[in-house]
Amino acid sequence: MEEREISKAVVRRLPRYYRYLGEILESGIERISSSELSSRMKVTASQIRQDLNNFGGFGQQGYGYNVKYLHEEIGKILGLDKQHNMIIVGGGNLGQALANYVNFEREGFVIKGIFDVNPVLKGLSVRGIEIHMLEDLQSFIRDEEIQIAALTLPKTKAEEMAKLLVRYGIKAIWNFAHVDLHVPEDVLVENVHLSESLMRLSYNITRYEREHLG
Amino acid sequence: MEEREISKAVVRRLPRYYRYLGEILESGIERISSSELSSRMKVTASQIRQDLNNFGGFGQQGYGYNVKYLHEEIGKILGLDKQHNMIIVGGGNLGQALANYVNFEREGFVIKGIFDVNPVLKGLSVRGIEIHMLEDLQSFIRDEEIQIAALTLPKTKAEEMAKLLVRYGIKAIWNFAHVDLHVPEDVLVENVHLSESLMRLSYNITRYEREHLG
Repeated sequence: MEEREISKAVVRRLPRYYRYLGEILESGIERISSSELSSRMKVTASQIRQDLNNFGGFGQQGYGYNVKYLHEEIGKILGLDKQHNMIIVGGGNLGQALANYVNFEREGFVIKGIFDVNPVLKGLSVRGIEIHMLEDLQSFIRDEEIQIAALTLPKTKAEEMAKLLVRYGIKAIWNFAHVDLHVPEDVLVENVHLSESLMRLSYNITRYEREHLG
Repeated sequence: MEEREISKAVVRRLPRYYRYLGEILESGIERISSSELSSRMKVTASQIRQDLNNFGGFGQQGYGYNVKYLHEEIGKILGLDKQHNMIIVGGGNLGQALANYVNFEREGFVIKGIFDVNPVLKGLSVRGIEIHMLEDLQSFIRDEEIQIAALTLPKTKAEEMAKLLVRYGIKAIWNFAHVDLHVPEDVLVENVHLSESLMRLSYNITRYEREHLG
């Protein structure tokens, strides 16, 4: 496959293609035209062709895309053909909600353990995933070859924990704390800032009301 | 204030400005230059000036931004000067995690109730927020003037529930189910697709490994 620099905007859209193609594949459809994919995904056909052209040669004029091939190739680009071992740091509601998502595993993200400071939680399990105390964190990351840490601690504790995780060898942090982590350049951070998402919704409510009601 | 169409990219960035300005305000700083804001936010000063110019006249050359004024104005643009009443549909871990976020309330999002189908949860409370059964949904939305529904149901149940919520008058859905909801055009949807966020992280891991480890 061609190796080209893919724009951030395209990368943002790839998981959605992956999801739709997976569903289409499950429904038994082997080939799909850009116009049919367009009507399902509510994206213009030209946008689809342009996005998928980034990876070269997936589609053939008048013949459509090979769904299985395209799904697999996008999966490889997204790194879903490899297993990624993960821990959840923070055993509260959000951490437990993440541990309960079975879909992550199907996509190659295997949650090996949950970590918390609350001794009441020690040894308990969520969907078979054990909750450990922090004293085991360093050895666990090493022994279980953990690559990703999902950080579901409150804002005030997140920064310090991120530092510790980095010291113990974590290279990728999935950050749910409402703070921008300061980590070395070679550590990847993906933020899920729920407040910001909610603010975008209220921005749109406000704009809608201004345009239609006032 | 000037009314201009603000680009989606700027809107995406506004909540982050709002957060930083709030923190700066709390630390007692009254004025800040674009270059200082730039070094805190790790965004170029020219990007900051360009973004904030969208709203006209916040900054003065050589004098900096008035932090309180800017924070308030961005708050108004985001609709945070008004109260938004919200319910959570789905009383599982994720729904309970959302109910436990006190920050939402500080920003004007008041969670009035949680809804679930599981009778075991009936009458229980999370942080004083009661869990109700679905039979009360319609009257609750009307009586409590609910504007936003956070939807934390599994994918298979989300679409049907969205239809019901719309029928009962909900105009904004904060969707955590891993599916694109089909709702009328005047209903706003903000998606939090956790799987897609995790895939972007694994994309970056994969790209990093290819570039650095050969």
